[in-house]
Amino acid sequence: MQFTAAQIAALVNGTIVGDQHTAVHNFSKIEEGQKGDLCFLANPKYESFIYTTKASIALVNASLQITQVVHPTLIVVEDAYAAFAILLGHYETFLKQGRARLGIEESCHIAESAHLGKKIYIGAHAYISSKVNIGEGSKIYPNVYLGDNVQVGKNVLIMPNVVVYHDCVIGDNCILHAGVVIGSDGFGFARSSGVYNKIPQIGNVVLEADVEIGANTTIDRATMGSTVIKSGVKLDNLIQIAHNVEVGNNTVIAAQAGVSGSTKIGAGAMIGGQAGIVGHIKIADGVMINAQSGVSKAIEQSNSAWTGSPAGDYKQTLKSQAIFKNLPKLQIQINEMQKQIDELKALLNK
Amino acid sequence: MQFTAAQIAALVNGTIVGDQHTAVHNFSKIEEGQKGDLCFLANPKYESFIYTTKASIALVNASLQITQVVHPTLIVVEDAYAAFAILLGHYETFLKQGRARLGIEESCHIAESAHLGKKIYIGAHAYISSKVNIGEGSKIYPNVYLGDNVQVGKNVLIMPNVVVYHDCVIGDNCILHAGVVIGSDGFGFARSSGVYNKIPQIGNVVLEADVEIGANTTIDRATMGSTVIKSGVKLDNLIQIAHNVEVGNNTVIAAQAGVSGSTKIGAGAMIGGQAGIVGHIKIADGVMINAQSGVSKAIEQSNSAWTGSPAGDYKQTLKSQAIFKNLPKLQIQINEMQKQIDELKALLNK
Amino acid sequence: MQFTAAQIAALVNGTIVGDQHTAVHNFSKIEEGQKGDLCFLANPKYESFIYTTKASIALVNASLQITQVVHPTLIVVEDAYAAFAILLGHYETFLKQGRARLGIEESCHIAESAHLGKKIYIGAHAYISSKVNIGEGSKIYPNVYLGDNVQVGKNVLIMPNVVVYHDCVIGDNCILHAGVVIGSDGFGFARSSGVYNKIPQIGNVVLEADVEIGANTTIDRATMGSTVIKSGVKLDNLIQIAHNVEVGNNTVIAAQAGVSGSTKIGAGAMIGGQAGIVGHIKIADGVMINAQSGVSKAIEQSNSAWTGSPAGDYKQTLKSQAIFKNLPKLQIQINEMQKQIDELKALLNK
Repeated sequence: MQFTAAQIAALVNGTIVGDQHTAVHNFSKIEEGQKGDLCFLANPKYESFIYTTKASIALVNASLQITQVVHPTLIVVEDAYAAFAILLGHYETFLKQGRARLGIEESCHIAESAHLGKKIYIGAHAYISSKVNIGEGSKIYPNVYLGDNVQVGKNVLIMPNVVVYHDCVIGDNCILHAGVVIGSDGFGFARSSGVYNKIPQIGNVVLEADVEIGANTTIDRATMGSTVIKSGVKLDNLIQIAHNVEVGNNTVIAAQAGVSGSTKIGAGAMIGGQAGIVGHIKIADGVMINAQSGVSKAIEQSNSAWTGSPAGDYKQTLKSQAIFKNLPKLQIQINEMQKQIDELKALLNK
Repeated sequence: MQFTAAQIAALVNGTIVGDQHTAVHNFSKIEEGQKGDLCFLANPKYESFIYTTKASIALVNASLQITQVVHPTLIVVEDAYAAFAILLGHYETFLKQGRARLGIEESCHIAESAHLGKKIYIGAHAYISSKVNIGEGSKIYPNVYLGDNVQVGKNVLIMPNVVVYHDCVIGDNCILHAGVVIGSDGFGFARSSGVYNKIPQIGNVVLEADVEIGANTTIDRATMGSTVIKSGVKLDNLIQIAHNVEVGNNTVIAAQAGVSGSTKIGAGAMIGGQAGIVGHIKIADGVMINAQSGVSKAIEQSNSAWTGSPAGDYKQTLKSQAIFKNLPKLQIQINEMQKQIDELKALLNK
Repeated sequence: MQFTAAQIAALVNGTIVGDQHTAVHNFSKIEEGQKGDLCFLANPKYESFIYTTKASIALVNASLQITQVVHPTLIVVEDAYAAFAILLGHYETFLKQGRARLGIEESCHIAESAHLGKKIYIGAHAYISSKVNIGEGSKIYPNVYLGDNVQVGKNVLIMPNVVVYHDCVIGDNCILHAGVVIGSDGFGFARSSGVYNKIPQIGNVVLEADVEIGANTTIDRATMGSTVIKSGVKLDNLIQIAHNVEVGNNTVIAAQAGVSGSTKIGAGAMIGGQAGIVGHIKIADGVMINAQSGVSKAIEQSNSAWTGSPAGDYKQTLKSQAIFKNLPKLQIQINEMQKQIDELKALLNK
């Protein structure tokens, strides 16, 4: 399958600079581009590659200043990254045409009281418990388990081996990657004479619309009430979300981060990989938390940035970290100063 | 379903202060309590809420001093948190009555040599290999895999998509949440000319009684002998327990922590989320390790507390962390002192 | 089953010191050895145990200097650890004879267009999608999902509940432990007016030959092109490998470590548990990264060692960490010096 610069420009509403008949059949990164490839340039850091890439077509931002001869035909758009994503989406749709999954495969288990919407897919060996609702257009892949009374919205994608415990709610357009566990018991115990007795976890988990959850991530059900992941949230792989946590709209969390019980994270926050957040605190909207940070106190200031473990103000902590690296020199400097003081003392005692 | 203060007081052996006919139909946190809710107050930090909550009934400790008018009917008990847990348990049992799982569902795979106790549940698409033993009252949910010769005790709950490798032992009353892997090969290789050759892992994993394991946690089998999780241990989600580790009775470990090979952790220890412990060391009984700590040496003192990476004594490390935050100021102070010394020198050289 | 020192020496090409008729029936660690056990001594740290162990036979290195009477019969070899691994391998093979899995079990789902090699095993409830290829001698355990067009080489072992997304490639002799997810979507979104739009991930994951992947580890598919795990790589449990990452030949990564998008790790590297590596950087061959380190910049020097978060040179950082522990004392020292300076000043102002 080939596409010409003219066809592509039409799809992304771009302007062609170069030969409109240039054809491509593959996507690539700009630095790895070969003949027949379509690439894009959005990050100024990669700007020099526009003069060296062998790709045939490059999507570029209107703001780009071309200062030398370029090899590829350019398609100029407002936002080259967004335009590239659109094209990838078209290509993916095209690829999937041959493998669209629809209908109910044999040897899955579907309770009589379950309610199935139209145009759904349920794979083999999936298990749909009592009173489950599955909305129109949703796809439940093989080996998925949906517990009693689970509510699945429309156009939801639940990949293989996902487990959703009873009473949990999955909003429209959510994507749950393989191995995700939603609604396992929160980690709640009452200690009595050194022994831990289980606190029943009778709440649930609610994923609002447009939430994507990465592979093997776990989200525990609330002790009472709901653990809530608000609409537009994107969680990466292997993340832990504890009971009664709330994650605000359009917040993104990178892989292996963990949020402890009852903590409430605002909207539009960005949390780095392997970061940890203690329980029972609030994190304001738009807060940025660096990878591996350990947040031990509430963060009240919106859009503030944090790093370190325990986490501190981003810029302040960078300064402390720079001095930390030089601590051996600082120690020498201090010892040297003590010597100078001792010399001065000796001088004055004479 | 409604319950009166009189009914509830009878269940938890409490004393009513207020109207014994007050009725509730729901549980809530004290700060979120509404008419018809039952809440509890155990943590003195939340004491002020007893005067503002709209909950109808509150469980409180006998030690609580009431200083103003309160709205809810009070039920006074020795330990309000424990009493609340008991009530949640009754409620959960009540909820589950309609959905108790029993019997063997179609299309599961059960080897002929497997031995199944009475009153068990085996879900669809579960796989029970040769010589597996399942004790009375245990429930094996759909899509679970039990390898050859796995021994499962009585009243065990194994949630969907759990995998237990061959020869592992699961004690009575254990709970394994979805996606748990028990008995995967330990990470053991012999390096030879830069290539890693696998060391066969011929041991197993033994979970003693009353162990609960969180979703997607992994426990590797021993190279030789057993990886042992002693009775009463509670592990949260996404934890890694390496080969030949031993975790002592009633120790709790929070999410995403990791314990490296052959390390032995004592009884009654508390290990925070994302903490890491190196291999081949001993951790004494009752030790507390803060979240994200990195323990690189044996801890010999019982009940001692640790934090930081590398971990140090808890209180000492907090002091170092406080100074770390102020390192930029300390650097200025030092530079300032050097200036003063230089001035003194100049003065004396005159 | 018993084996004599003579039989064992023949298997590992060793020299017997002691009674060639000594018999063993079990493996143990040297410090836990009992009558009838075979143990080994490779690490000089454990040398004293050779004089106290009750094991009947010990494999030892030719370089070992025996200075006192030893109880066990010794078998002297070049590399005692490697020899022990060989014996474990023989024993494991022997153990497995009774439980070899072969053939295709009932109630698995196999697409008509799938191509199955000879001498394979496909467990019950496994799901083999369209155009999947499975090479000779491979074993696919129960509840595994292989997406469309997945290519599995020869003698591959895929343990229960593994998920491999469409178009991914698994090389010869690979071992994938339970719960592994290969080829889930990379974490790629384009932010637009505060909302995150999904970037389609149209690439795949390629595992070359002899790769072993620990339980519940996740490896995301590339946005374009391939996420590549080169031959001989060993990954432990619960590791996150992001989209477009490349891990070089024979690199080992310990549990719960994470590698962010597009980072390229060289050959023969060793990465500790819970370490994190940022995206878009290169790590040179043979680099050693300590547990819990946070690598935020490219590492250009081969075989260099790193620790800390943010990571610095290993030895330098140990020095800084030692001073960090003493910061409270350093603070006192500095304050004390200021006093001395003040006294000197006072003296001079007189």
